[in-house]
Amino acid sequence: MASTMQALCKVKPEAGFVLQEVPIPEIGPTDVLIKVEKAGVCGTDYHIYGWDKWAQARVKPPLVIGHEFMGRVAAVGGAVHSVAVGDRVSAEGHIADLTCLLCRTGQAHICERVEIIGVDRDGAFAEYIAMPEYNVWKLDPAIPDEYAAIFDPLGNAVHTVMAAGVSTKSVVITGVGSIGLMAIPVARAAGAAAVYAIDVNPAKLDLAKRLGADETFDARDPELVAKIHRLTNGDGVDVLLEMSGQGSAIDTGLQMVRNGGRAALLGIPSDDISINLAERIIFKGLTVLGINGRTMFETWYQTQALVKSGRVDLRPIITHVLPYTEYDKAFALMKSGEAAKIVLDFKGDQA
Amino acid sequence: MASTMQALCKVKPEAGFVLQEVPIPEIGPTDVLIKVEKAGVCGTDYHIYGWDKWAQARVKPPLVIGHEFMGRVAAVGGAVHSVAVGDRVSAEGHIADLTCLLCRTGQAHICERVEIIGVDRDGAFAEYIAMPEYNVWKLDPAIPDEYAAIFDPLGNAVHTVMAAGVSTKSVVITGVGSIGLMAIPVARAAGAAAVYAIDVNPAKLDLAKRLGADETFDARDPELVAKIHRLTNGDGVDVLLEMSGQGSAIDTGLQMVRNGGRAALLGIPSDDISINLAERIIFKGLTVLGINGRTMFETWYQTQALVKSGRVDLRPIITHVLPYTEYDKAFALMKSGEAAKIVLDFKGDQA
Amino acid sequence: MASTMQALCKVKPEAGFVLQEVPIPEIGPTDVLIKVEKAGVCGTDYHIYGWDKWAQARVKPPLVIGHEFMGRVAAVGGAVHSVAVGDRVSAEGHIADLTCLLCRTGQAHICERVEIIGVDRDGAFAEYIAMPEYNVWKLDPAIPDEYAAIFDPLGNAVHTVMAAGVSTKSVVITGVGSIGLMAIPVARAAGAAAVYAIDVNPAKLDLAKRLGADETFDARDPELVAKIHRLTNGDGVDVLLEMSGQGSAIDTGLQMVRNGGRAALLGIPSDDISINLAERIIFKGLTVLGINGRTMFETWYQTQALVKSGRVDLRPIITHVLPYTEYDKAFALMKSGEAAKIVLDFKGDQA
Amino acid sequence: MASTMQALCKVKPEAGFVLQEVPIPEIGPTDVLIKVEKAGVCGTDYHIYGWDKWAQARVKPPLVIGHEFMGRVAAVGGAVHSVAVGDRVSAEGHIADLTCLLCRTGQAHICERVEIIGVDRDGAFAEYIAMPEYNVWKLDPAIPDEYAAIFDPLGNAVHTVMAAGVSTKSVVITGVGSIGLMAIPVARAAGAAAVYAIDVNPAKLDLAKRLGADETFDARDPELVAKIHRLTNGDGVDVLLEMSGQGSAIDTGLQMVRNGGRAALLGIPSDDISINLAERIIFKGLTVLGINGRTMFETWYQTQALVKSGRVDLRPIITHVLPYTEYDKAFALMKSGEAAKIVLDFKGDQA
Repeated sequence: MASTMQALCKVKPEAGFVLQEVPIPEIGPTDVLIKVEKAGVCGTDYHIYGWDKWAQARVKPPLVIGHEFMGRVAAVGGAVHSVAVGDRVSAEGHIADLTCLLCRTGQAHICERVEIIGVDRDGAFAEYIAMPEYNVWKLDPAIPDEYAAIFDPLGNAVHTVMAAGVSTKSVVITGVGSIGLMAIPVARAAGAAAVYAIDVNPAKLDLAKRLGADETFDARDPELVAKIHRLTNGDGVDVLLEMSGQGSAIDTGLQMVRNGGRAALLGIPSDDISINLAERIIFKGLTVLGINGRTMFETWYQTQALVKSGRVDLRPIITHVLPYTEYDKAFALMKSGEAAKIVLDFKGDQA
Repeated sequence: MASTMQALCKVKPEAGFVLQEVPIPEIGPTDVLIKVEKAGVCGTDYHIYGWDKWAQARVKPPLVIGHEFMGRVAAVGGAVHSVAVGDRVSAEGHIADLTCLLCRTGQAHICERVEIIGVDRDGAFAEYIAMPEYNVWKLDPAIPDEYAAIFDPLGNAVHTVMAAGVSTKSVVITGVGSIGLMAIPVARAAGAAAVYAIDVNPAKLDLAKRLGADETFDARDPELVAKIHRLTNGDGVDVLLEMSGQGSAIDTGLQMVRNGGRAALLGIPSDDISINLAERIIFKGLTVLGINGRTMFETWYQTQALVKSGRVDLRPIITHVLPYTEYDKAFALMKSGEAAKIVLDFKGDQA
Repeated sequence: MASTMQALCKVKPEAGFVLQEVPIPEIGPTDVLIKVEKAGVCGTDYHIYGWDKWAQARVKPPLVIGHEFMGRVAAVGGAVHSVAVGDRVSAEGHIADLTCLLCRTGQAHICERVEIIGVDRDGAFAEYIAMPEYNVWKLDPAIPDEYAAIFDPLGNAVHTVMAAGVSTKSVVITGVGSIGLMAIPVARAAGAAAVYAIDVNPAKLDLAKRLGADETFDARDPELVAKIHRLTNGDGVDVLLEMSGQGSAIDTGLQMVRNGGRAALLGIPSDDISINLAERIIFKGLTVLGINGRTMFETWYQTQALVKSGRVDLRPIITHVLPYTEYDKAFALMKSGEAAKIVLDFKGDQA
Repeated sequence: MASTMQALCKVKPEAGFVLQEVPIPEIGPTDVLIKVEKAGVCGTDYHIYGWDKWAQARVKPPLVIGHEFMGRVAAVGGAVHSVAVGDRVSAEGHIADLTCLLCRTGQAHICERVEIIGVDRDGAFAEYIAMPEYNVWKLDPAIPDEYAAIFDPLGNAVHTVMAAGVSTKSVVITGVGSIGLMAIPVARAAGAAAVYAIDVNPAKLDLAKRLGADETFDARDPELVAKIHRLTNGDGVDVLLEMSGQGSAIDTGLQMVRNGGRAALLGIPSDDISINLAERIIFKGLTVLGINGRTMFETWYQTQALVKSGRVDLRPIITHVLPYTEYDKAFALMKSGEAAKIVLDFKGDQA
């Protein structure tokens, strides 16, 4: 095996990535080396590429980028026993300490000392990545490569939907970026009785409709809250899935939820927001859930079950599969709004 | 039976109450007439007495005040079958429509068309009150009159504690007014492993200690969050019971909760508050519960069970029992901060 | 209005029913008189018709039979306020006392003093039935009459499915009588990832397949448990819905559930069964749920939401709609096994 | 360090143990070697000692016995990072595969491929034991050695109590062997409003009373079910903790639970039992939980929290602490019924 590999790196504190030759990562006794085949491009990668305020505060170059991927096991450490060379795998990108209260009680996804690949340590936009055995997810043969490459964000959607609980419920999704879009077929497959999607982007709302939303709405419609109440016998929806991170969407979203309903917040506001806690949450008796990542690994099993059931069709969302060398094009497509989800190919299928 | 009775009334849109003779309420076929024996004085009554901004917006005089009480059944409507004349009762003061989705699914306490006695319709600071049979709670002989008179606010404390779930957990209570104080023995009896109380009032913190708080803290202590983390192995507490309604307490309270923990919000902020949703709720994976009233009637059964177990001693909280004619004194005691909980006597025990 | 009506009665302790003229029921202040339009025929009715051992022990003639129905409100008592004459309604057939612990905590469906219409008191196979307002369910216009007539057994299926929790889960249904059949589209619509149906009747298994079962199995297949394990990666299914009441099905059903899984028992064994509690339940860490009736009225809202979503197609199950005068034919069809679900028409649509 | 150690071994398929010199276990990169200081003697050990039918079927000599213990870390493998030499520890005795669905979703305690120390592989009645790092539990300094040595059975009691959910509930415990006895203070500390203990052994019932049971009953009392109903307003208790494994106790226990209640089954019947599923579970709408082991590691945190709260006093249960060389005496004390819980000392404190 060669000792170096191609990797997409943030080399300096400035915009852009550099494709360069770096050493193949070494693995310890409990680690797994994975040959990357396909990798998803996330909004987070776009922020790091563009080197925005958040990226400047969080990312320490040099760093290999990327956290959504699938590939094949290339080598395993001496104490690894659950996967073997050649296994087709994806991996959970949140590397938890596995020793704290949270990790020891099934909540490793919110471990306080978590490191995220491609953000806090070297990531997956490379020919190889080293992962702890604990994080590796052996893929079912029925899962297509493109879906496997985006199990991470799909898992965000699944975790949000399952934490909220949608079986027989009416659901509003505020914000249909790629995770919000995924949440539509996920919520339907998980048993939602009605799904309403809200955004400001008409193209995204069209896509939402194609993915199974019962109705879609422009977030700026002044009649929006009233319309949702009319659709729900005046009660409001049972469940809000907040995926925009916008203060106004959170406020109107909470108005749309019925008393006693549930709101799962995945979208991340960039600033403090002002909220009427009394009217929006307390008097209504709401349950509000902060959502971060995906549970290890209940969400992964749920995601697998949903995809295998054939009831989650993500093809309208995966708008582009590009060779990894065309990463600049990928980010241009994201910028233009033309792309929903882009998958980079490291295997050469598309080369 | 006489046709009139003494009642404490808000007669005009101005401060103060008037003790006057009014007609004894009439009852319909599904109503119960109750001769009031003891009634608790609540902060809400104090707001109405003082005629503050909230009271001016909500209360429409003339109105009999008061919503916490116990007494004896004096008469029943023709279709009433669960209580009889002479029964010792308290009653749930939230009168729900009993026909909506919420009422039909065990959530009548957050019915959108709820009316509260003593706020939206005639209340309990009177010799008699008419209540729907549905709202009447037959008292167990083991419940003392004074406790029975305050089952309403005690129920707020119990509902908050039980919604949060405290069994084997560490708990912070922010704000120890009378409900926050009640929450201390309630949380202990319900299984909390540790209870920490926070307030700005040293007298209330002393009372909190006497009621069973493991530690108490001044809310203005700049080391407060750090101290709570030190007491909890660096993790933070499992549960926050927010009973102050203060923005700063909500913010520091949420900082004290561990990732994956639960926060139950009972205190009602008078204005919008500004909150860092990302850091305080989303990344932490918190569950935040809006708490309103008490469930009908699971909370009442839980409250009864706790009081009967002998493990909830409220005597340090019930600082005064006064004849109802001394209502001005009661509100003066509340204003001075001398009183925790005042009970008015309508039966003549204290006359 | 006439003072008498046609009703299907059990008049003596012997097999068969008699269609006869009886007084139209009187209503009290909190009752509703309903003109029956359509009524479902249940296995329970069949037992009473045939006068088997269970019926002999439970039913006290004379009695009007029938408990699944829909119709129009014909009159209301003076204290009724949630429905009006002319409203299209169904009703919950379990009449609870509404005063006990269970009724007061959202569990009226398992009230110890429940009376079931058509079993313990006069039922719905008649031109009119009197029901307490509490039990009446106002129908959404989108619900077809035939579905509305069988909301009771459909509600059994929904309650079983929702109590077990099927969202993203694999599910085995043992016993596909009419409720077991209904549970198939209900489980799919509620989010089950895979549904396997088991029975001894090939016709019912065919119907199960048409209703959306992923696979069907003969209950006598000696490889059955092994096959289910092969379909579930060796783990077993997440959820068992037991709807046969057969000891052998319960035993093999429990073997098919994975450790930590859930089993909901709706089928009623006629005798004691022998069970290896250690191997089937304790070591596996199973959760076993006894299911009785339907919750009032969360199940009704869930049932309505599922039907309105258009994802529960019961048409293959409703094999016959007959004029009520042809009741003997209905029971003959049930006996022959030709019928899945029969609806009797009291309105004259089919006359 | 010496290469051999003293260990209590089952050397041949016959009654009794042999204290002999065996090699100190070797550790792999993810293992921890622990110098045992104190170890609890369990009923399981007694079965193996006596070589009963169960032991003959399960245990393959030669084997070091014992699974409840605490001690100090003596050496760690190269990949171990959560504990260090000298740390005071206990350990979970169920060694799970950590790779299956159950282990990956927080249910390792019911992993199908679990091995139990002292039963399926070498155990803790020895000077040293090797454990996977995953299983090691670092002890809080506030936990006394004797309590730490029996965290395993105490954890059984805690897991049963917490799975059932006892906060504000009434609880019956059927069978007060050592785990049943522990469950009394655990249930009280976890928030039970009332605890009733049932057994046939008057000495155990006396002990139950001293440990905080509100009432105790002889299991053979023909009025038993009626008495429990009288204590609970005719409803029955909210929760049954079944810890006897006796068919008759399970049957009467289920009769004592109210409709809609919960029953947690920990006691292991040695044979099939006959049960009236319809009357005992289905019509009542019960939730029945099979309980096996303790969750890893939520139960351990709960156990620690309870012990640290000072509200679980186990001193009346730990009747004897003996040098490990007096193991024959320990089993004689168990046989005589004189002992509740015996702790063996390997450190020399009692030598």
